[in-house]
Amino acid sequence: MKIIAGFFLAILALPAFAADPGTPWQSLPLKAPEPKDNLATPAKVELGKMLYFDPRFSETGTVSCFSCHNVMEGGDDHRPTSIGVHGQKGGRNAPTVWNAAFLSSQFWDGRAGTLEDQAKGPVTNPVEMGMKDLQSAIDRIGRIPGYRQPFEAAFGSGDAITIGNAAKAIAAYERTLITPGSAYDRFVSGNKTALTEQQIAGMKQFQALGCVACHQGPAFAGPVGLPTGTPFLMKFPMFPASPYVATYDLAKDQGRFESTGKESDRHMWRVPTLRNLVYTAPYMHNGAVKTIPEAVRVMGSTQLNRTLSDQEVNDIVAFLESLTGPFPTQAMPKLPPTPGDLLQ
Amino acid sequence: MKIIAGFFLAILALPAFAADPGTPWQSLPLKAPEPKDNLATPAKVELGKMLYFDPRFSETGTVSCFSCHNVMEGGDDHRPTSIGVHGQKGGRNAPTVWNAAFLSSQFWDGRAGTLEDQAKGPVTNPVEMGMKDLQSAIDRIGRIPGYRQPFEAAFGSGDAITIGNAAKAIAAYERTLITPGSAYDRFVSGNKTALTEQQIAGMKQFQALGCVACHQGPAFAGPVGLPTGTPFLMKFPMFPASPYVATYDLAKDQGRFESTGKESDRHMWRVPTLRNLVYTAPYMHNGAVKTIPEAVRVMGSTQLNRTLSDQEVNDIVAFLESLTGPFPTQAMPKLPPTPGDLLQ
Repeated sequence: MKIIAGFFLAILALPAFAADPGTPWQSLPLKAPEPKDNLATPAKVELGKMLYFDPRFSETGTVSCFSCHNVMEGGDDHRPTSIGVHGQKGGRNAPTVWNAAFLSSQFWDGRAGTLEDQAKGPVTNPVEMGMKDLQSAIDRIGRIPGYRQPFEAAFGSGDAITIGNAAKAIAAYERTLITPGSAYDRFVSGNKTALTEQQIAGMKQFQALGCVACHQGPAFAGPVGLPTGTPFLMKFPMFPASPYVATYDLAKDQGRFESTGKESDRHMWRVPTLRNLVYTAPYMHNGAVKTIPEAVRVMGSTQLNRTLSDQEVNDIVAFLESLTGPFPTQAMPKLPPTPGDLLQ
Repeated sequence: MKIIAGFFLAILALPAFAADPGTPWQSLPLKAPEPKDNLATPAKVELGKMLYFDPRFSETGTVSCFSCHNVMEGGDDHRPTSIGVHGQKGGRNAPTVWNAAFLSSQFWDGRAGTLEDQAKGPVTNPVEMGMKDLQSAIDRIGRIPGYRQPFEAAFGSGDAITIGNAAKAIAAYERTLITPGSAYDRFVSGNKTALTEQQIAGMKQFQALGCVACHQGPAFAGPVGLPTGTPFLMKFPMFPASPYVATYDLAKDQGRFESTGKESDRHMWRVPTLRNLVYTAPYMHNGAVKTIPEAVRVMGSTQLNRTLSDQEVNDIVAFLESLTGPFPTQAMPKLPPTPGDLLQ
């Protein structure tokens, strides 16, 4: 997996990635990219939705993808850090699933290259879904007779119920969880009245201050065109002397270093999307920052070494609010019945 | 609250309650009864659905009504007993929410008279949603700005966000969670091919053996026409010498006695619905019995002091399977965003 240290590349690469040459602003596409070996079908998406909502994938039968990535709200769990099986707390803030399909890597540290890979992670994490191993998880699902038909509809008859197919189906469903059509999207698509004066002022500040160096592209999470599997990484905090680092304990978790152990990964993080922030409080990898204005101040200080004025903060917040929704209406999936001895 | 000891009354009362005089068989109405002081409106039902799915009603922000009453499946949680906040286990099997609107009382011991009363119970149960008190719960919801509009749409402007209104909205939503149109319903409505020969044989056995003495009425949970708030109670186990009582530890929990302390309530239980059993394994108040055939054998032994033949069991199981669904298609609710300091 090739890794891009975002800060320097991003500045060089901006014009080349921009849909409209000369501007870093891109609207969210109406369809998420999908890998050639996992093209979506209605049957696959429907199966993926069932699995996404199915708590029987967890040791206790109480935690599903949906538990921490609530698509009835902001695609996260409203908490600083998540709670998995047996009431255990995780260490990082749940990233939103909305528009994850547009990111070039998954998890806060980009350690999963694809949605398919990501989907398998929480299943065996002892503080998330807590299954012993992936085989136990898919064996559990395979013991639910009503899953045979939807798996075969999605993947053909035969040995359809595999962890690989389950992950593919969940990823195919997640590629439908996108929110094009925000006020910002309408603005950059030509509707010049879609943003308020203040939002336009904030957009200019966002560019002038340099926020857009990292938070660029359709998802504000990195340049468009980065190959899937290539995390767009950034150092955080860039300025460790910022008083916010102590206030919010922002340097304790060393980011990608925690999973790779490489010195070059210390405090490196995947640049998170800025879409739908209105719905994803609290903020930062540890969920320590409670409001968008404060998050903007923190980022100004820790990444740009600047103390932003109230005016700058307010304008940027107004702009960030324009990146909200709309969330598509979804029908609830119907889950097959449980054998009585499946869960103890 | 007037209490009916079901066994004796039921036998006397059967003809009077039957829609078709002379038969105990009634189809499920297409609409659930509703109290005069809580007539449904679309705005109230939609608010109720939002609240039903909202985990922010729990201490940790992880447990909603939906967590243990999963309307994407059988309206329960597939577990022997439920798991609430901090991984704590409850003592009884989660009853299904499907068709609860047709029951004359709520909870396994009938201690809540109405859906409105029931909705408030789990919120402050320390092993369920774990809120300190109902006021804290509604204060929490009131701090979510996006709830003001839906509460006012449902209950008018002014002091709309109250625990009473929240319970009313949830109850109004639950009254939409009904499953008329099962094969059995179509059969008793005149479609004589809706049941198989075996199912009809099972239906006759169900009546001849006396199961229908308690499991009667549209929900198979008691006679139609019992005033709401009047639990239809039955002793269980009726024959404590049944070997199943020890095998499945069926007498440890003393039922209604545990909440009232009255001697006459010892081992008294509300008669549970038999609809959608295919979806609600495992069975009994403690979730100890894993399959429908075994549940039928247990009931034959503990309530009728009979050892049922395999043929009787198989026929009755076939009949019980005819009481399944259909479950209505539902759109997911959209929940308002969370202030970043709502949950710690």
